[in-house]
Amino acid sequence: MTRYKLTIEYDGGPFVGWQRQDNGPSVQQTLEEAVTGFCGETALVEGAGRTDAGVHALGQVAHVDLAKDTDAGTVRDALNFHLRGVPVTVLDAAEVADEFHARISARERRYLFRILDRRPPPAVDWGRVWWVPVALDAAAMNEAAAVLPGKHDFSTFRAVQCQADSPVKTLDELSVTRAGDEIHIQARARSFLHHQVRNFAGTLKLVGEGKWSAADVAAALAAKDRTRGGPTAPPEGLYLVNVGY
Amino acid sequence: MTRYKLTIEYDGGPFVGWQRQDNGPSVQQTLEEAVTGFCGETALVEGAGRTDAGVHALGQVAHVDLAKDTDAGTVRDALNFHLRGVPVTVLDAAEVADEFHARISARERRYLFRILDRRPPPAVDWGRVWWVPVALDAAAMNEAAAVLPGKHDFSTFRAVQCQADSPVKTLDELSVTRAGDEIHIQARARSFLHHQVRNFAGTLKLVGEGKWSAADVAAALAAKDRTRGGPTAPPEGLYLVNVGY
Repeated sequence: MTRYKLTIEYDGGPFVGWQRQDNGPSVQQTLEEAVTGFCGETALVEGAGRTDAGVHALGQVAHVDLAKDTDAGTVRDALNFHLRGVPVTVLDAAEVADEFHARISARERRYLFRILDRRPPPAVDWGRVWWVPVALDAAAMNEAAAVLPGKHDFSTFRAVQCQADSPVKTLDELSVTRAGDEIHIQARARSFLHHQVRNFAGTLKLVGEGKWSAADVAAALAAKDRTRGGPTAPPEGLYLVNVGY
Repeated sequence: MTRYKLTIEYDGGPFVGWQRQDNGPSVQQTLEEAVTGFCGETALVEGAGRTDAGVHALGQVAHVDLAKDTDAGTVRDALNFHLRGVPVTVLDAAEVADEFHARISARERRYLFRILDRRPPPAVDWGRVWWVPVALDAAAMNEAAAVLPGKHDFSTFRAVQCQADSPVKTLDELSVTRAGDEIHIQARARSFLHHQVRNFAGTLKLVGEGKWSAADVAAALAAKDRTRGGPTAPPEGLYLVNVGY
């Protein structure tokens, strides 16, 4: 058996999320079916992050073990052949040591949250941005975002269904920048709680609207209570950009 | 009656093109139905450029005459309300003089052609770029593009079904740049022949692959013969960016 590290891009729109589920097509299942199509093997494709329904990836990472005698370039091209017509693509495949584990070995995950901040709704980017028709103050959002990095109990930004052992995480970066009529929220950490970036985005939007201050965000964090945080932003603005090892 | 200038963004994927046709939904028909939904009027929405099926717009311009007593901001918002669920959005509406004509008054049109130049197919940008899996030399393409601006008989790059009176046009700009794994072809002229930008793109791709030189492009232009030009690039990479008046 050879272990391959796969780097994967996908449009999350048509999927129930990364993880295999009974209620619809998942990215994981789509990839596992492509593996079977390629070499006839039934193999687990284990991802670094379990993105939610509708969340996109520019650089998800997964690993898979194959018995077939082949090479990494062939794995990439053959999987893409079997993925034709679905919005999932293998950007890269590389042979790795058996100790490599896409989820457990990951040291850093980067997410991007895109807000389209304009009165007319999106057309070309429909389903790929969170449309916020009111004008947001990106500088105020960035100032408020600065209270969140560090090692904290992030219960305020944690989905009730989160399965992590602890709500304590170290957030390495959270920044907000404006690019034309888009606002980009960038987040970096070793790992995130369920809905953590979407809950950051929903909370920072309140700051951008002038309803909350940076002090309100700090108080919400200190409360360690999900009911004190802002709403969960929708999935279509979120991108898993990169996983570092 | 008041004349409004509309600036429009759309994803061309689901449409038979800008112009009303019997064989499927057009952007024009979609906008005219939104006008009727808004004010009950049956009005012609006249566009600056008749984009083909699958071609996108970031800044198409059209005009429409409305009898309803209203204001430009309401026109924009009401049309967008009636366009919800379809990938067409009115970016701006403005009152203009009756002499303004979206097509005839236009002095400049800008197009962008996006090539995704990488071996794995697109996922997030599926339907929004021309996927070219072989490595292209963007500098060579830009050098060859430089032979095309100016006033020429562009018959070599004109679709057989083109309805323009003359094949002679003045091309003001044609440039090729690389942005990561994308190649951007930018074209600017008062007006274009049918398929002209897509035929430029298909020809410049031959240069990028090393199959044609800049001299071959110059010879093709001089031949004034469509059969001497490169193939027509697919519509999904093409964007009508801006119309100037």
